Amino acid sequence: MSNQDLVLLDQTDGTAGTSGTARASGSADCCPGLLTAPLDEVQAAELAKVFKALGDPVRLRLLSMIASRAGGEVCVCDLTPAFDLSQPTVSHHLKLLRQAGLIDCERRGTWVYYWLVPEMTDRLAAILTRPTGAPAPDGAAS
Amino acid sequence: MSNQDLVLLDQTDGTAGTSGTARASGSADCCPGLLTAPLDEVQAAELAKVFKALGDPVRLRLLSMIASRAGGEVCVCDLTPAFDLSQPTVSHHLKLLRQAGLIDCERRGTWVYYWLVPEMTDRLAAILTRPTGAPAPDGAAS
Repeated sequence: MSNQDLVLLDQTDGTAGTSGTARASGSADCCPGLLTAPLDEVQAAELAKVFKALGDPVRLRLLSMIASRAGGEVCVCDLTPAFDLSQPTVSHHLKLLRQAGLIDCERRGTWVYYWLVPEMTDRLAAILTRPTGAPAPDGAAS
Repeated sequence: MSNQDLVLLDQTDGTAGTSGTARASGSADCCPGLLTAPLDEVQAAELAKVFKALGDPVRLRLLSMIASRAGGEVCVCDLTPAFDLSQPTVSHHLKLLRQAGLIDCERRGTWVYYWLVPEMTDRLAAILTRPTGAPAPDGAAS
């Protein structure tokens, strides 16, 4: 395994070192493991950005509308009418979801189309899933 | 000092059920399904509180320290030294995690002991899990 495994949840980390433990990697079978070992500061900072993006009711509704759309993508013109908010405000929330890696988008003509990035929600689900087997692996000295 | 007015995901058992829409309720077999259907405003508001609690690096580290502790509970006296923060600040973060239903605690003599509420992380994991049968990203199996 190379240091290329250190694909971060976000790409804003400029101080990645080699001293950390296993990091949030881009591969779906690896995750920091919120419930299995203490997160280090870098892991926690990256993960917090994503959860912070989810910590708003409008953004959660937008994400659920995008994720549950049959066909996989939604025009922003179909999202805005669901909210009592201006289109710039809705677009701002969408931008925060996109910056967190939860959705992606593409402009086509007049409109922007959004879709879920399922790798990110998969990763969050894995991070929040208790390890199978023993309820509390007896790894830590207490 | 306590924000008992917060309606938490965990505490809606006694009051939910008046609307026809499935709520993020205390029943373990039900979840709003972030990825399967648009959330309504009530669901989104409740869920956002929990994700907001997770949207902070210190709180994520605290949660991971508590959740991964063999034996299942941690004295606050073992949490504080891991941070360059005052004990009141650490306690404030712990209070926010507790209000979100992610951890619970008990005072015993001088110290307060914390433990994970796995039902809440289970619920979040379920909410973020794609329904079976959904296409996997990149054609990745499982």
